[in-house]
Amino acid sequence: MFRVAVIGCGYWGPNLIRNFRDHHEVEVKIICDLDPERLKIASNLVPGVELTTDSEVVFQAKDIDIVAIATPVNQHYDLALKALNTGKHVLVEKPFTKTSEEAVELIQLAERKDLTLMVDHTFLFTGAVRMMKEIIQSGELGEIYYFDSVRINLGLFQHDVNVVWDLAPHDFSIMQYLLEQPPTSIQVISRSHVGQGTHQNMDDVGVGFDNSRLAHIHVNWMAPVKIRRTIIGGSKKMLVYDDLEREDKIKIYDRGVEVTTRDERYSTLIQYRTGDVHVPKLNNTEALKREVTHLIDCIKMGKKPDTDGVNGLDVVQLLEASDRSILLGGQEVEILDMKREWK
Amino acid sequence: MFRVAVIGCGYWGPNLIRNFRDHHEVEVKIICDLDPERLKIASNLVPGVELTTDSEVVFQAKDIDIVAIATPVNQHYDLALKALNTGKHVLVEKPFTKTSEEAVELIQLAERKDLTLMVDHTFLFTGAVRMMKEIIQSGELGEIYYFDSVRINLGLFQHDVNVVWDLAPHDFSIMQYLLEQPPTSIQVISRSHVGQGTHQNMDDVGVGFDNSRLAHIHVNWMAPVKIRRTIIGGSKKMLVYDDLEREDKIKIYDRGVEVTTRDERYSTLIQYRTGDVHVPKLNNTEALKREVTHLIDCIKMGKKPDTDGVNGLDVVQLLEASDRSILLGGQEVEILDMKREWK
Amino acid sequence: MFRVAVIGCGYWGPNLIRNFRDHHEVEVKIICDLDPERLKIASNLVPGVELTTDSEVVFQAKDIDIVAIATPVNQHYDLALKALNTGKHVLVEKPFTKTSEEAVELIQLAERKDLTLMVDHTFLFTGAVRMMKEIIQSGELGEIYYFDSVRINLGLFQHDVNVVWDLAPHDFSIMQYLLEQPPTSIQVISRSHVGQGTHQNMDDVGVGFDNSRLAHIHVNWMAPVKIRRTIIGGSKKMLVYDDLEREDKIKIYDRGVEVTTRDERYSTLIQYRTGDVHVPKLNNTEALKREVTHLIDCIKMGKKPDTDGVNGLDVVQLLEASDRSILLGGQEVEILDMKREWK
Amino acid sequence: MFRVAVIGCGYWGPNLIRNFRDHHEVEVKIICDLDPERLKIASNLVPGVELTTDSEVVFQAKDIDIVAIATPVNQHYDLALKALNTGKHVLVEKPFTKTSEEAVELIQLAERKDLTLMVDHTFLFTGAVRMMKEIIQSGELGEIYYFDSVRINLGLFQHDVNVVWDLAPHDFSIMQYLLEQPPTSIQVISRSHVGQGTHQNMDDVGVGFDNSRLAHIHVNWMAPVKIRRTIIGGSKKMLVYDDLEREDKIKIYDRGVEVTTRDERYSTLIQYRTGDVHVPKLNNTEALKREVTHLIDCIKMGKKPDTDGVNGLDVVQLLEASDRSILLGGQEVEILDMKREWK
Repeated sequence: MFRVAVIGCGYWGPNLIRNFRDHHEVEVKIICDLDPERLKIASNLVPGVELTTDSEVVFQAKDIDIVAIATPVNQHYDLALKALNTGKHVLVEKPFTKTSEEAVELIQLAERKDLTLMVDHTFLFTGAVRMMKEIIQSGELGEIYYFDSVRINLGLFQHDVNVVWDLAPHDFSIMQYLLEQPPTSIQVISRSHVGQGTHQNMDDVGVGFDNSRLAHIHVNWMAPVKIRRTIIGGSKKMLVYDDLEREDKIKIYDRGVEVTTRDERYSTLIQYRTGDVHVPKLNNTEALKREVTHLIDCIKMGKKPDTDGVNGLDVVQLLEASDRSILLGGQEVEILDMKREWK
Repeated sequence: MFRVAVIGCGYWGPNLIRNFRDHHEVEVKIICDLDPERLKIASNLVPGVELTTDSEVVFQAKDIDIVAIATPVNQHYDLALKALNTGKHVLVEKPFTKTSEEAVELIQLAERKDLTLMVDHTFLFTGAVRMMKEIIQSGELGEIYYFDSVRINLGLFQHDVNVVWDLAPHDFSIMQYLLEQPPTSIQVISRSHVGQGTHQNMDDVGVGFDNSRLAHIHVNWMAPVKIRRTIIGGSKKMLVYDDLEREDKIKIYDRGVEVTTRDERYSTLIQYRTGDVHVPKLNNTEALKREVTHLIDCIKMGKKPDTDGVNGLDVVQLLEASDRSILLGGQEVEILDMKREWK
Repeated sequence: MFRVAVIGCGYWGPNLIRNFRDHHEVEVKIICDLDPERLKIASNLVPGVELTTDSEVVFQAKDIDIVAIATPVNQHYDLALKALNTGKHVLVEKPFTKTSEEAVELIQLAERKDLTLMVDHTFLFTGAVRMMKEIIQSGELGEIYYFDSVRINLGLFQHDVNVVWDLAPHDFSIMQYLLEQPPTSIQVISRSHVGQGTHQNMDDVGVGFDNSRLAHIHVNWMAPVKIRRTIIGGSKKMLVYDDLEREDKIKIYDRGVEVTTRDERYSTLIQYRTGDVHVPKLNNTEALKREVTHLIDCIKMGKKPDTDGVNGLDVVQLLEASDRSILLGGQEVEILDMKREWK
Repeated sequence: MFRVAVIGCGYWGPNLIRNFRDHHEVEVKIICDLDPERLKIASNLVPGVELTTDSEVVFQAKDIDIVAIATPVNQHYDLALKALNTGKHVLVEKPFTKTSEEAVELIQLAERKDLTLMVDHTFLFTGAVRMMKEIIQSGELGEIYYFDSVRINLGLFQHDVNVVWDLAPHDFSIMQYLLEQPPTSIQVISRSHVGQGTHQNMDDVGVGFDNSRLAHIHVNWMAPVKIRRTIIGGSKKMLVYDDLEREDKIKIYDRGVEVTTRDERYSTLIQYRTGDVHVPKLNNTEALKREVTHLIDCIKMGKKPDTDGVNGLDVVQLLEASDRSILLGGQEVEILDMKREWK
């Protein structure tokens, strides 16, 4: 039986608590939050659980095996560090850390201590993302030309992070999981429309690779409609992933363009190749349930999780580079890969 | 009765011919195209019309009042120049010219000759764009924060222009018509995925103004689905314009974000203000019909068309600046406004 | 503090338990189900609750104020009868009873005992149905011509009821709530496609009134797609209610037909009046939460619930009449209103 | 070269004229309409065509091979009779005739005269209907349980026919083409909401067969939204045909229901079998173009058209039976098949 402590009971924490509670090899022992009101509500999920507003209680507890951290990002490093130093496995919310240096330190500490460190990139455990991975690996799409994602809605303006830090980690992690190619550069067109203008609410992120591949991610906290749609264009087929569809989230289009020569003077009509559309059935298991199972399996087997610290670091490096591009007025900046020096 | 010659019978020319033919004060006298097959097909639209493969026939004709030019853009300047020099009013397809210098020369020539010069930015004559203009002018949306447009589909890769020159003129002209604010800078994230890589097929264009306003235009020739959607975000309300909707093309959302302070450590749930949605009824008159009527009225009254040469020049300047940004690897470039020196 | 016992922990029971639990004046004391496995799962919702497989435990308990019955319909009468006879208020799942005689007996017993008897027609407590009620009462739609509902999906074929008993009670209760006019006749086009043909899975129900008004309800357990859409046609405006829309569930169309005389020999083009569309913002409070609050308020004030036994009876009468029409091969049958004799 | 005369230039006539004009073996010689204004407009389509308001001119013309009749239905019999009697092939608009007796007479006359008689059930020539035919014939759907069609919009109330005669012929002809099973009974739930109540504007038509198969057709002239959707349910797969989709008109769902036994007392959760969805690419050739080609081919080869008089008669028999059911207040009536006696 693995004994878990969850730190942070805001929006996401209760989902972690519920999924840990429902795993047959897990017992949720301690829930920690600064806010007693939140603690009380969360305690309904696990009758008899220990409640505390002091995270030290978690770290001092001898019988805790896993610490799940669902606080704002600026707490991640401190809390994960203490958890690892007191011999506990760690699951930490996305984005992993505020800086790549923090991420590297945690990764190296976990390795030295032989502890499992997993980052909660939940989307990678959804049936939709798993299906896309399968499709791309099978070669059905051909060469992948682009990954184009729109993630907009009417959202809360946060004071400590901009919209890229809030929404783009989902796309960064999915993109990296699917493309398996290290990004080399990033460029962000960005605006802040309200407040003191210090936190961008509408951004276009272009991620470059060392070929002509492009990942484009559009995020906006100030849109009247909610859109969650990714288009993946390949040389053979193309795919649309709409996460708001109730059933048919993924559609594979047997479509492509033909490069034809225009005649000397006049434009011709649009020409293209179109075929059937296919909508694969998806596994509907809750992603977080799969993720918790994967964490427990990794701890038991001593395996690296699919979303380990290095994965978390990759996303943090993209976020840092985005910030640099924003600071430089949208210039394209190189992505510094800490892993190159360190490994 | 105004006598019209139409040069160019490719994709758009027949639409011009049909709408000129149906105007009660217009007679279509000559149709010109290099391709005899196209001429034959177009001649079905106007029984008895004169056909020619030689544009000089049009310019030499004494009884032609208006020349409509629907050829590829690289022919626009030459043909318009000759038409104006032989005393004819001119309607020219978008984009107006290959360079802003060409545009300025045509504008000045038309003024000296006291001839009407109109650019065919058809979208500005649709019921949808007119309705958006009314809504924005009424102040219903408040201050306009952004204009965000997606115009993608599976399209023909053209050899003489990239996807920005092909698709973005629509958005540039609509944006300028609605916002009435001179853009100051442009930045393009761009890729070419097929062929020799010389013509971009997927671009994100960010247009800056001298405040925090942003126009963002995403164009793609290689998308499996067709999307034509513009979101306009204002401080009071927001608007979505979906040109593919059969009926309800424009939706006005009484929605906005509230800037709230987060508590000390934890993120709060998403908060926003939402109210009703309103779908105004649109005038369904064919845009090109309105446009032809407007051209005839302008010629009769000696008025400047709503989409005159200066409008056409503004769009060309944005296209030129886009090309410069692409050449510079996506750097933000200033928009040079020829009108400042010249006027 | 009201003490509640819930009998039946199948699909719907846990929702009742959760909403009772969350009401500040309610304590869930006993949960009863024949299946110990279900009891165990349900007990997670209310730590420490008493569990039993014997409903007599509920009836014998002196400290139970309210019994909520969420069993199959054939148990409703027996359980409600015992609950009322042992002095308990009753909330019973829809449809109320198997026969109108049972319904009348329960209504009369509750009145004699001065106990509250409420039927769980949850839809009447949704923001969408409440908004439609307001709109219709305001006269905005004019005279209501028809109520046309489609409720189809891929569903379990049940052995004890047909698709009308399973799905149509929702539409019957909404229709009665909105129209406030006693239906007079019913006619059902019906088919059974699988099994021994004893339980219809695809039905069209036409409900007549003593004017030309028509309610039409299409239900199907064997449809590949899920549809939940009601159209209400009025002399002034029309309304579409799509319960599967995430946000804009109700749209009011300023549209109508014009009765024009055709010319002598030829059909004219389609003519109609169309105007704006309006999408009102809805209250998103969970319907069952409102319903529980309403039940408690009614008990405290001694008021009749909005969905009292008489409402439940009205729906049962429509279901009985549907069965008679089906038996008679789809003949139109009169709706017998028990209330006429009895009141 | 086949010389064609078209009688009737209302809504549909011009489409016939245009498609005949564009066939390389056809010449449109005469256009006839009572209204000179319509004639003038139609003449734009075929410069130099002979115009007349007197249909006798058509019948007396020696050089006319084919007469296309696009008038209101009450003229069809007289005009077709004269055309056949003067030795001309006939294409007649749907519905074929006012009565089945008229239809039989025309069919027999055409046979005696060895002339081609075709009814313009255009939908049968669309890529969508052809694809459905292929799918059903291949056995992919298994046994067909039902055909369920909704055809509603805001339409003109016509004085000479009700909504069944106006809209249902499309569904009747598609249904017969796809199912290839003679219908045996019909039952109509029907209402007239405006005018003197003599012409129904909202109807549900149930068509029975000698097994449990059901065709259900819902038509409404007074709906705020336009819907054109047919669901075909089979024992193996199901199909949705949405004619308003721009591209993906047909979706094949690998879904079905499982008949499971409920446990003794409690309802179980919904259970079903679901798999992938497939969207076949359709041939986009204009249906009327195919139809005209088919007519010319049939005349040349002396073949019976796919939509010959017998097909037209089948639809008329369903319309007549619908009228009888409406007259009898919605009773199920037998479908009298004239072909049984006559053949």
